[in-house]
Amino acid sequence: MTKNVGNELAEIEEFLHCSTPQAWLEAALKNQPLLLIDHANCERKAASTAITLMYRHMGKTELLVKMSQLAREELLHFQQVVEILSQRNIEYVRISPSRYAAGLISHIGRPGDQSLIDTLIVGAIIEARSCERFSKLYPLLDAPLSKFYKSLLKSEARHYQDYLQLAQLYSAESIAARVAFFLEVESDLILSEDSQFRFHSGVPTAGAIKISPSR
Amino acid sequence: MTKNVGNELAEIEEFLHCSTPQAWLEAALKNQPLLLIDHANCERKAASTAITLMYRHMGKTELLVKMSQLAREELLHFQQVVEILSQRNIEYVRISPSRYAAGLISHIGRPGDQSLIDTLIVGAIIEARSCERFSKLYPLLDAPLSKFYKSLLKSEARHYQDYLQLAQLYSAESIAARVAFFLEVESDLILSEDSQFRFHSGVPTAGAIKISPSR
Repeated sequence: MTKNVGNELAEIEEFLHCSTPQAWLEAALKNQPLLLIDHANCERKAASTAITLMYRHMGKTELLVKMSQLAREELLHFQQVVEILSQRNIEYVRISPSRYAAGLISHIGRPGDQSLIDTLIVGAIIEARSCERFSKLYPLLDAPLSKFYKSLLKSEARHYQDYLQLAQLYSAESIAARVAFFLEVESDLILSEDSQFRFHSGVPTAGAIKISPSR
Repeated sequence: MTKNVGNELAEIEEFLHCSTPQAWLEAALKNQPLLLIDHANCERKAASTAITLMYRHMGKTELLVKMSQLAREELLHFQQVVEILSQRNIEYVRISPSRYAAGLISHIGRPGDQSLIDTLIVGAIIEARSCERFSKLYPLLDAPLSKFYKSLLKSEARHYQDYLQLAQLYSAESIAARVAFFLEVESDLILSEDSQFRFHSGVPTAGAIKISPSR
């Protein structure tokens, strides 16, 4: 790791097809409890997805090792967000997931090698977007949350690289076209109107911000 | 943590209703590849179970923190076993699970508070048995594996305590009778004949040892 976070961030901003819209940032600042609750869910789901990949691809040692490392880091971040929720007296209620991950996953190929490569590409893109959003958010937050979000940049950037490297490792051909396809899907999800505010949501419509326990 | 591992082990041996039978130990030494493959699966499943509990019980901060810590340790052990498999040229093939966890889980109460408490008790018992088996195995193994298995004793003993403490924390009454019930079920699974050799299997019948990929 000779590169500093600045270089990694520049690479991620070049990789993604669009920046986070200002309207999303404003919505995030106005509803930090919802942002934190969804952030905790995202970390837990990222760990869970990594373990599912470990189960499905037992013969791929590099994948097993990288996914184990990644899941451990996501679980540590989950715990850190849960502790912040607790410190701030924010109840960790169940909320519906954003359309974002489902929107990307809906384009993943059928079970088999293409499914694995697509899943890894989607993983890379989600990590890249998370890193980009943390980088935009942290200068605008209160000191403890700002410090925490800044601390996440490095690991999210590493996860993005790990996912992308694994996708190329297990693909017989270049993954560039497939990556470009998923980045276009992702950009649409980020730039189009979204009736629900979440960590990875699009441009919030009026009324997108509310915590409503889903059950 | 003022107690040393010797004291923790003594506590665990007193907690469990029986010791690992000699016949299981002999079978384990004769088929270390199968032992290691099933061990890797157990670590991954333990992490996965912890994350499922985190999803189901979002309002219980102590549980979220403990399960996140536990899942991270299980994932580290998983990775260590995967690396040992790789070093020893043992193919990490898919094998059927043992009857052990399913046999315990079949007695867990219906969804709700009793289900949580039962699940935590079962977690404690599985960790206790794992610790007891590592303690019996490590003096009999080659140096690298012996060192690794000995290193696992402390964390398995801690996981046993964490699960038991959480079970009592979330139970309105003493869990002693329920613990005794599950220990009796567990003892039957350990002491009765088992046609399939696995990390948590019973007394192996002739022919119990074979690696047969399950798909």
